[in-house]
Amino acid sequence: MRPVPKIATIVGGGVIGGGWAARFLLMGWDVRVFDPDPQAQRKIGEVLDNARRSLPGLSDVVLPPEGALSFHDTLEDAVAGSVWIQESVPERLELKHKVYHSLQTLCPPDAIIGSSTSGFKPSELQRDAIRPGQIVVTHPFNPVYLLPLVELVTTDENATLVADAKEILTSVGMYPLHVGAEIDAHIADRLLEAVWREALWLVNDGIATTAEIDDAIRYGFGLRWAQMGLFETYRIAGGEAGMCHFIGQFGPALKWPWTKLMDVPDLTDDLIDRIADQSDAQSGAMSIRALERARDDNLVSILRSLKARDFGAGALLNAQDARIAGLVGLPDDLTRPIVTVERAVPLDWTDYNGHMNEAKYLQAFGDATDRLMAMVGCDAAYIAGGSSYFTVETHLRHLDEVHAGTVIRVETQVLLGQGKKLHVFHRMFAGDRELATGEHMLIHVSLEARRASEPGPVLARSLAQVAEAHAALPVPEGAGKAVGLRE
Amino acid sequence: MRPVPKIATIVGGGVIGGGWAARFLLMGWDVRVFDPDPQAQRKIGEVLDNARRSLPGLSDVVLPPEGALSFHDTLEDAVAGSVWIQESVPERLELKHKVYHSLQTLCPPDAIIGSSTSGFKPSELQRDAIRPGQIVVTHPFNPVYLLPLVELVTTDENATLVADAKEILTSVGMYPLHVGAEIDAHIADRLLEAVWREALWLVNDGIATTAEIDDAIRYGFGLRWAQMGLFETYRIAGGEAGMCHFIGQFGPALKWPWTKLMDVPDLTDDLIDRIADQSDAQSGAMSIRALERARDDNLVSILRSLKARDFGAGALLNAQDARIAGLVGLPDDLTRPIVTVERAVPLDWTDYNGHMNEAKYLQAFGDATDRLMAMVGCDAAYIAGGSSYFTVETHLRHLDEVHAGTVIRVETQVLLGQGKKLHVFHRMFAGDRELATGEHMLIHVSLEARRASEPGPVLARSLAQVAEAHAALPVPEGAGKAVGLRE
Repeated sequence: MRPVPKIATIVGGGVIGGGWAARFLLMGWDVRVFDPDPQAQRKIGEVLDNARRSLPGLSDVVLPPEGALSFHDTLEDAVAGSVWIQESVPERLELKHKVYHSLQTLCPPDAIIGSSTSGFKPSELQRDAIRPGQIVVTHPFNPVYLLPLVELVTTDENATLVADAKEILTSVGMYPLHVGAEIDAHIADRLLEAVWREALWLVNDGIATTAEIDDAIRYGFGLRWAQMGLFETYRIAGGEAGMCHFIGQFGPALKWPWTKLMDVPDLTDDLIDRIADQSDAQSGAMSIRALERARDDNLVSILRSLKARDFGAGALLNAQDARIAGLVGLPDDLTRPIVTVERAVPLDWTDYNGHMNEAKYLQAFGDATDRLMAMVGCDAAYIAGGSSYFTVETHLRHLDEVHAGTVIRVETQVLLGQGKKLHVFHRMFAGDRELATGEHMLIHVSLEARRASEPGPVLARSLAQVAEAHAALPVPEGAGKAVGLRE
Repeated sequence: MRPVPKIATIVGGGVIGGGWAARFLLMGWDVRVFDPDPQAQRKIGEVLDNARRSLPGLSDVVLPPEGALSFHDTLEDAVAGSVWIQESVPERLELKHKVYHSLQTLCPPDAIIGSSTSGFKPSELQRDAIRPGQIVVTHPFNPVYLLPLVELVTTDENATLVADAKEILTSVGMYPLHVGAEIDAHIADRLLEAVWREALWLVNDGIATTAEIDDAIRYGFGLRWAQMGLFETYRIAGGEAGMCHFIGQFGPALKWPWTKLMDVPDLTDDLIDRIADQSDAQSGAMSIRALERARDDNLVSILRSLKARDFGAGALLNAQDARIAGLVGLPDDLTRPIVTVERAVPLDWTDYNGHMNEAKYLQAFGDATDRLMAMVGCDAAYIAGGSSYFTVETHLRHLDEVHAGTVIRVETQVLLGQGKKLHVFHRMFAGDRELATGEHMLIHVSLEARRASEPGPVLARSLAQVAEAHAALPVPEGAGKAVGLRE
């Protein structure tokens, strides 16, 4: 593609237009906004705030410097020099036609005009346009700055700009799904609309509440669909017997009264073969077993990411952990190091070397420290009260490898627990095999002042009790050592 | 609930029955299987293999010891002492009735018989049963050992066992969604069936392939549905104006020809109010802004978990990173430390203290080490050739806090790069502010032998070049220090 000046025009702000503005801006484009709404600047600003806190960190490299954002009183001003014009005005065809007419009398003739329409076909948008070939559907999904999907729907009129449009959308981190055969509501919204109608029936008929329907989605198939879609999921469900078998098996259900809306395509041999062939082309490179493992790896990663957020299915898992773990308190016997972690190594803790990644050793030791803190009284309630411990220094020794599924155990010895200082030594084992040690210096801090402070009296007493008991233990091997100095 | 012996009977193996067996077993239950299929033992074994590698690590605590798995030739044998009987035989009502009749003449009368049926109503299952009240629908989702959702559908006959059923299902880590108003296909499968029909139309009409439909799901709304469902998502889309406004705005689209299946409930004031009230009860405790932030935090976490797996939307993000970063090579100027990481702190790197979690410092330093390795020639191809570096020792100093969104930079100095040893020192900055240092000793290893080995000649030469150039730099402050020894 020819190098283009990175200038985009946003016609129509709001949540969708604002999302487009944020994506272009944060990917280094200058963004020029036209929206007669006096609230436009505030609305786009709010979307931009959300985008700035979430999008840059999604990337593992630094994004290009943010472009310049400007608001314009006239369309003529807004489209000057623009190579991409995104229209996100309300879903009224005559309004869109009016906007395109104004746009095409003012904008560069080789700019691309993308419409955010969720329903109209590009041929409808192009009708009576000055240059029909300039107008395409580029239908995004909210939040536009995070979700990659954009449906690029074109007609024969658009033949010359499809490649450019795909390249520009890809360059701002989106996935242009090119839909050549236009249809009302494109692809995704047809599926969404089907679910929406069915959900309305469920509420209407008093079968389920909105919360129950949402739970039925996010604790079940929603987790599958974040990684694989409908057909790949069913390919796995069909097992070694394949897609033809799956459709043969579940086809009859289509004739049962499972939805309010009963018209279904005839499952002719031709249709079944087409689906099976397309599924082979899509997923045939992986065996069913490999697909199952990929699915499970992804599910574990997604579930554990939600667990860290204590949200949705992740909150369920945390509740289950709490039920299994029971109450947290100091063990009766303080003459030995305290078991602070006992868990299986999860799939998402391993890396390209096939073993637990170095950062996850520190994760486990950090969890061990958190557990010790909770045991001596620096728990969630104490932290909510405005104090905590911060780690200031860490020394790790990796002694042996460990793989996913192995149960690891961390035993913790308090070397010093006095005043502001907490000096701990963790040893990680798999059975009798020592895997690693972690030596950590923590400082008690005021979260308000963000500086060292004395712990509360209950915490201090409890910690002193452990430190005193542990003082009788031998100094562990590796304590007090520096990197590369073996004695 | 009374304490119960943890004994479950699985009637009908296969993928679903095997998934139930795995979940009960790994949660400490004894599992007794009855399935006349001579392949049952192999099939359940395969599901169990998948479950053993994925489920235990999902938990942050160690699961109870695995129960005992046994296969039985007679139903009588299989149900002995069982408190939970899960029926997963094929979806033929007369077959299920036959199974229940045999079961109820043999099993303890207070055991719960759950059916995995995805379509039949519990009243249909209970028809002509010896003890109708013993039979409920417990419809799970594949993979049963990972997805929490189970639809618990009951009739008035089941009144006395609902609480027990919920408690048992919860105890094995599931989320029993209690559906009191029975309906064909319960809740989730009605939604799935609606999508499945619509998808079949799209393939049938040549609009999209199976792969395109799957991409439309997993790059878009599938990511939303892994955390929030349909209604909470639309509540956010509706913004401050609320659910009534949203339905009013998008209601007309229901009358447009957006799906093949057009019957929709009338959007009466009563229905709209009911949805708005239910949505308030579900999500009203959070403002729209708070919901937006929760959604974005979740999306970032999910997307980054998929990124680590290089799968689905995560693979798109990695490709985007590669496009932004360009080629990896050593900088021309080796008289200064090398910039090995430059990135914004992602939302999922922060913890309950509101700042970047200690383990993520090591993550960033590990990424810096990986980048340095790739620069000197220990890249993915070299590692695929059977050699790599393993970290054996690490020393971290935390000097200052950093929050999500801040751009961090890691500058890397090679202290030693000779023979099998690689000794590096990373300094992390936000602008001029020094945040942390990481000192690491790595050893070059043969991945086959899992022991120290000499690096290849090209890598050794490249590393020596950097080490020689960096030898002229001053020894960084903090190098060679042990925890707690400030001197």
